[in-house]
Amino acid sequence: MEHTEENLLKLIGSVSGPDTNAMDDAEKRQAQLAKPPGSLGMLEELSVRMAGITGRVYNRIEKKRLIVFASDNGVVSEGVASAPQSVTTLLTVGLCNGKTGAAVLARSTGCELVVCDVGVNADIPEKKVVGRKIAYGTGNIAAGPAMTREQAVRAVMTGIELAVSAAKEGCDVIGVGEVGIGNTTTSSAVLSVLTGTDAEKVTGKGAGLTGETYLKKIGVIRKAIEINRPDGNDPLDVISKVGGFDIAAMAGAFIGAAVMRIPAVIDGFISVVAALCAYRLCPAVRDYMFPSHESFEIGYRTAVGELKLRPMFSLGMRLGEGSGCPLAFEFLSEACAVIDEMATFEELNITDEYLDNISGGDSFSVK
Amino acid sequence: MEHTEENLLKLIGSVSGPDTNAMDDAEKRQAQLAKPPGSLGMLEELSVRMAGITGRVYNRIEKKRLIVFASDNGVVSEGVASAPQSVTTLLTVGLCNGKTGAAVLARSTGCELVVCDVGVNADIPEKKVVGRKIAYGTGNIAAGPAMTREQAVRAVMTGIELAVSAAKEGCDVIGVGEVGIGNTTTSSAVLSVLTGTDAEKVTGKGAGLTGETYLKKIGVIRKAIEINRPDGNDPLDVISKVGGFDIAAMAGAFIGAAVMRIPAVIDGFISVVAALCAYRLCPAVRDYMFPSHESFEIGYRTAVGELKLRPMFSLGMRLGEGSGCPLAFEFLSEACAVIDEMATFEELNITDEYLDNISGGDSFSVK
Repeated sequence: MEHTEENLLKLIGSVSGPDTNAMDDAEKRQAQLAKPPGSLGMLEELSVRMAGITGRVYNRIEKKRLIVFASDNGVVSEGVASAPQSVTTLLTVGLCNGKTGAAVLARSTGCELVVCDVGVNADIPEKKVVGRKIAYGTGNIAAGPAMTREQAVRAVMTGIELAVSAAKEGCDVIGVGEVGIGNTTTSSAVLSVLTGTDAEKVTGKGAGLTGETYLKKIGVIRKAIEINRPDGNDPLDVISKVGGFDIAAMAGAFIGAAVMRIPAVIDGFISVVAALCAYRLCPAVRDYMFPSHESFEIGYRTAVGELKLRPMFSLGMRLGEGSGCPLAFEFLSEACAVIDEMATFEELNITDEYLDNISGGDSFSVK
Repeated sequence: MEHTEENLLKLIGSVSGPDTNAMDDAEKRQAQLAKPPGSLGMLEELSVRMAGITGRVYNRIEKKRLIVFASDNGVVSEGVASAPQSVTTLLTVGLCNGKTGAAVLARSTGCELVVCDVGVNADIPEKKVVGRKIAYGTGNIAAGPAMTREQAVRAVMTGIELAVSAAKEGCDVIGVGEVGIGNTTTSSAVLSVLTGTDAEKVTGKGAGLTGETYLKKIGVIRKAIEINRPDGNDPLDVISKVGGFDIAAMAGAFIGAAVMRIPAVIDGFISVVAALCAYRLCPAVRDYMFPSHESFEIGYRTAVGELKLRPMFSLGMRLGEGSGCPLAFEFLSEACAVIDEMATFEELNITDEYLDNISGGDSFSVK
């Protein structure tokens, strides 16, 4: 499929809502299980949402894949990041070699890891990397647009393709992460425009900024918005002017998962901003998204609030790389196991004679 | 070992504090790993605490065991529970058969399940149950003590033994759960006395009480405290007068884990009250305890606050049975994997030539 905006719009149009019949059936099953109603909390809700996605009450999370998009951001030349740009390359290679945080977390939970270069400012010689480089980094958003609209479309389509491939290869869920020095700056800029929130309220200290550099970062974001004048009602315009290849590709991955009707897990701040871009491009994707952890980054809550979704846990993590997704896969997996394998009160009680034979047990029946 | 109070005190005296050298080493390692300092949030803290427990920086959570203590409570005759007493038996049997919520969660995360009858009001004919029945349920605390002090000691010692066995059989961690209709009432009573908090502030709606029964429950707890006059400075007195066999045995399990220097995971409300009992009996056990989820029960926060511990996640669960522990084992396991397998910046960067060979990568070194 050619990477045109027309094709992108077609794909977006193909996303449909959840299967509400299956959701009703899942809710009914949950109500029958041998537990006080609602006592498994969010695990119940997750199982019902899964039913809506697949159209089946009983699901399994067996094949899990974390997709990490790596790219560089021209805005780092403004001095807004606490690490040099080459760290993007270093971490991308480290991910491929299984040595970074998310790589370890993925491996130890038995989940596949796909690393996709959509715009790292270096040639990555790793065989494992999926090479889809759109350019050697974006332009400096404080001086002009990050990329052309056509490049933004290509990056989104790339993300869609990787999610579609995952589904075709049998993945039951994907997680969407990133590596890219400077991408909290672009994410805050995108979030500020999409929500009409002042930069200060959605800009955090990234991977470790101190006072002065933090103020500079806010200034750079304001300047980027001022000179590029992105249209907050046109997510592709926002991404291309003040975003990044990673954000674009991640937004695509969320759309691709929805196209294929598999769940997609949101990682932290950059991932949730990409999820919000996907939602603005295609509101129906929301039902396919699952936030994992509540990121420590200040803008996270704004973005997840816009999505009206609730993260599963809050560990104070802010590593990126999709590091929150592997644990969230476990939550989803547990949610599916519960509805699939737990007995109803009636099933527990099949043996009335059995209970009668238990001395001391008074007669009992729960409907 | 005979189940005497003297022996219990000996065991309590044998619990020592964490290995602070190992904790320092773990902190140093965390600071070197290829990530912004602190960016793995609580996973870093968990890995450091694990080092304190085992004395080793590098740990593995491979063999996991959930221990569930089942017992009945005489206080149900006051009408304070939303389910009949026989449900304890039903759920105990269901746990053994792998059919209840915690059984499913344990199985699907590959963790062992041990079900121990310390006081169910029925003979459980399941071969899988570990039979350590102290009595067929406790006395009604609204009319007299739950048990004798000697019975309380026996129950605590039983819990210690099960935890010690787990450690001897190679478990890297245990989780501590319960089944017992009426045990939110006894737990609230124990918590009220241990913390000097009014019953109303630590009493929740259990598995599904409505307005009037809820008020009755508070009244029953106040009455139980009034007529039994437990001594808040003597945890064994509190447990024996207004507690239950499950709470006692669970408190023992926490102590047993600390004796053997393995971590013990707290489940929900009843489990955290038992953990608080263990802490009051033996303050050093605190360093071996890990709260899993923040229970929906109102008293949970009071108890976990007394322990000065912070739960890992909050899913709105209130099922009991140890159902929060399997997911918490995953968190601990991930924490151990990260410190063990992640590279330091220096290790990622071993190949200066490698980076030099990457076109576009500017020179880079992180110390």
